[in-house]
Amino acid sequence: MPKIDLDAIEATNRTGYPMPFAADMGGRWFRRLAPAGGLSDFGVSHVTLKPGGISSQRHWHDTVDEFLVMLDGEAVLVEEGSETVLRPGDCAAFPKGAPNGHHLVNRTEADCTFVVAGSPDSGQCHYPDIDLLWDSAAGIYRHKDGEPY
Amino acid sequence: MPKIDLDAIEATNRTGYPMPFAADMGGRWFRRLAPAGGLSDFGVSHVTLKPGGISSQRHWHDTVDEFLVMLDGEAVLVEEGSETVLRPGDCAAFPKGAPNGHHLVNRTEADCTFVVAGSPDSGQCHYPDIDLLWDSAAGIYRHKDGEPY
Repeated sequence: MPKIDLDAIEATNRTGYPMPFAADMGGRWFRRLAPAGGLSDFGVSHVTLKPGGISSQRHWHDTVDEFLVMLDGEAVLVEEGSETVLRPGDCAAFPKGAPNGHHLVNRTEADCTFVVAGSPDSGQCHYPDIDLLWDSAAGIYRHKDGEPY
Repeated sequence: MPKIDLDAIEATNRTGYPMPFAADMGGRWFRRLAPAGGLSDFGVSHVTLKPGGISSQRHWHDTVDEFLVMLDGEAVLVEEGSETVLRPGDCAAFPKGAPNGHHLVNRTEADCTFVVAGSPDSGQCHYPDIDLLWDSAAGIYRHKDGEPY
């Protein structure tokens, strides 16, 4: 049936980032909803950030659109040159190709939860703060000079 | 900036349905978020149903994936042969090609609000309860026998 049984989907805090960047991701717990719901045109994840957790390293995609809506709690949207608090019901969009590195940071003492949708993985993902580049064609993370991790 | 200013986007209750089906849609107020946010890979709408309002005529798409998450209030998800109450935080997925006509009905005395994402319009949309068919290639609604409205 269309309603998704969230409790039946494993929540995980795994990450594909290489060290040391992986070490920052322990407070991000997510469930992949698209495969559970039979969707393939776009991805959807249900994400909980523990206090101190971050949604990802600050990044932007060259060919992937992203959209998120806050469900519970509060997070700070950190983007290029500014910060914005997001509360339940707030929505944010990250169009592909806009070089505005962004992520969410939970600076509160309580969990926060959001849903994020995105185009299927393609192109490159850029990380302005760290020596990291996602190369989706090769399926690997690289240093900024192109060298694989 | 990525946070979407919902108040700056016009909410409308317009519908493309022909009469008499259009007459049921007065209680659905929506904002198109994808164009406002610069997204083009998928659509996103922020929808409020007034008491008695419905999200659409009961329908299914042959080539469009849909996903929704409830934000406020309560709605009944009516699908083929069953009904399910959706409350804030509940998620539902409607994979393309699954012949499970669905819509949300607000049977409460208060507004309810949800966000829905979907693939770009394509293919046909089927309405099992009424004499209606959406033909996206032609951009028109038809009777089930193919005759345009």
